[in-house]
Amino acid sequence: MKWNEVQTEGSGGRTFVVVADQGDEAFAMLSDFAREQGLSGAQITAVGAFTDATVGWYDRERQEYRRNEVDEQCEVLSLVGDVALSDGEPQVHVHAVLGLSDGTVRGGHLLSGHVWPTLEVIVRETPVALRKTSRPDVGLALIDLDRTTT
Amino acid sequence: MKWNEVQTEGSGGRTFVVVADQGDEAFAMLSDFAREQGLSGAQITAVGAFTDATVGWYDRERQEYRRNEVDEQCEVLSLVGDVALSDGEPQVHVHAVLGLSDGTVRGGHLLSGHVWPTLEVIVRETPVALRKTSRPDVGLALIDLDRTTT
Amino acid sequence: MKWNEVQTEGSGGRTFVVVADQGDEAFAMLSDFAREQGLSGAQITAVGAFTDATVGWYDRERQEYRRNEVDEQCEVLSLVGDVALSDGEPQVHVHAVLGLSDGTVRGGHLLSGHVWPTLEVIVRETPVALRKTSRPDVGLALIDLDRTTT
Repeated sequence: MKWNEVQTEGSGGRTFVVVADQGDEAFAMLSDFAREQGLSGAQITAVGAFTDATVGWYDRERQEYRRNEVDEQCEVLSLVGDVALSDGEPQVHVHAVLGLSDGTVRGGHLLSGHVWPTLEVIVRETPVALRKTSRPDVGLALIDLDRTTT
Repeated sequence: MKWNEVQTEGSGGRTFVVVADQGDEAFAMLSDFAREQGLSGAQITAVGAFTDATVGWYDRERQEYRRNEVDEQCEVLSLVGDVALSDGEPQVHVHAVLGLSDGTVRGGHLLSGHVWPTLEVIVRETPVALRKTSRPDVGLALIDLDRTTT
Repeated sequence: MKWNEVQTEGSGGRTFVVVADQGDEAFAMLSDFAREQGLSGAQITAVGAFTDATVGWYDRERQEYRRNEVDEQCEVLSLVGDVALSDGEPQVHVHAVLGLSDGTVRGGHLLSGHVWPTLEVIVRETPVALRKTSRPDVGLALIDLDRTTT
């Protein structure tokens, strides 16, 4: 067991409040936002609701996401994740927990979700840039703290 | 697709740690706290446990929350949301994910939840005041970033 | 209903980004991290995936956690909680929400979870030290804000 860590003391970084419009596709919206703001590292937290969503479960054998469709109005109970640079571009990585009409819950890696009536997002920059390295053994690019820069 | 955003750099804002007493009703407690501290914008995150809770799913047709009762001791796996001003008063908006005794999960918009043995809450002020505008088309007041002030 | 609260204005505190290695056991890793960094109060948020996990539901009668096993690859949809001092040592308290291959969800108090392929963790120090007091009536040590110090 080991870890890497980066730290700064009280360095700040920007905090954004982002509110989606009705009909926005959340993943695309967050990705566009990250690109336009030039985010190189950030934490994302959100609540709201979707009319429908597609969430993924990563299939280790196939090296791709299995797509689970949630084809009904659902509360976004949490949307948690981060932004890191992959090949120089900000990549959004968020996981969604969705509450259905009977109080049961679905969730996964957010592939897409259409907002209604709102999605209230807090984006906090991390004090350092986060970078991903492609990992052919996994089939994904993962955050690589050896490549972190302030 | 579009968005609004507000930002400040390292402006701070207060961070509170709030711990509920046994038997406290969490939504009322958070609402009282927001009012007494005069919060005009904040992010809420919590974990703990409830003896029982009522969570909502917003019914778009009826323009009201369907109430789902969780009448058993449950772990509060996450309580995520925010505080914004609605008609000048702080309004708490949090979504709950609840873990039952067999590891299955329920959740929704938090209407009420009774704490036992604890609820550990972090409240972080946003650098700007958040304001809601009543939306008769939706049946709710939603955060309106055009009305945001620093 | 009542509460205690602690606050500081813009005091900062360190923010850490921690990325687990494949095969790390997440609870032990976070506990080691907290000890090595001398954390006396912090908020933890993470996403990633586990190959397997054990989550707990606190049984009030038995005063112990019922163990629910999740013996399959699962997305860590959220891992939320905190660090506080218990008998002078940092104690990690995190709750996990786990997404299965079909999009259904399990969760509870994190007892253990093995990471694959990654776990991306943000740790933010609270502006004050948090201390727990043993509560024989509950069978657990709980955060006691009367013992908080800056």
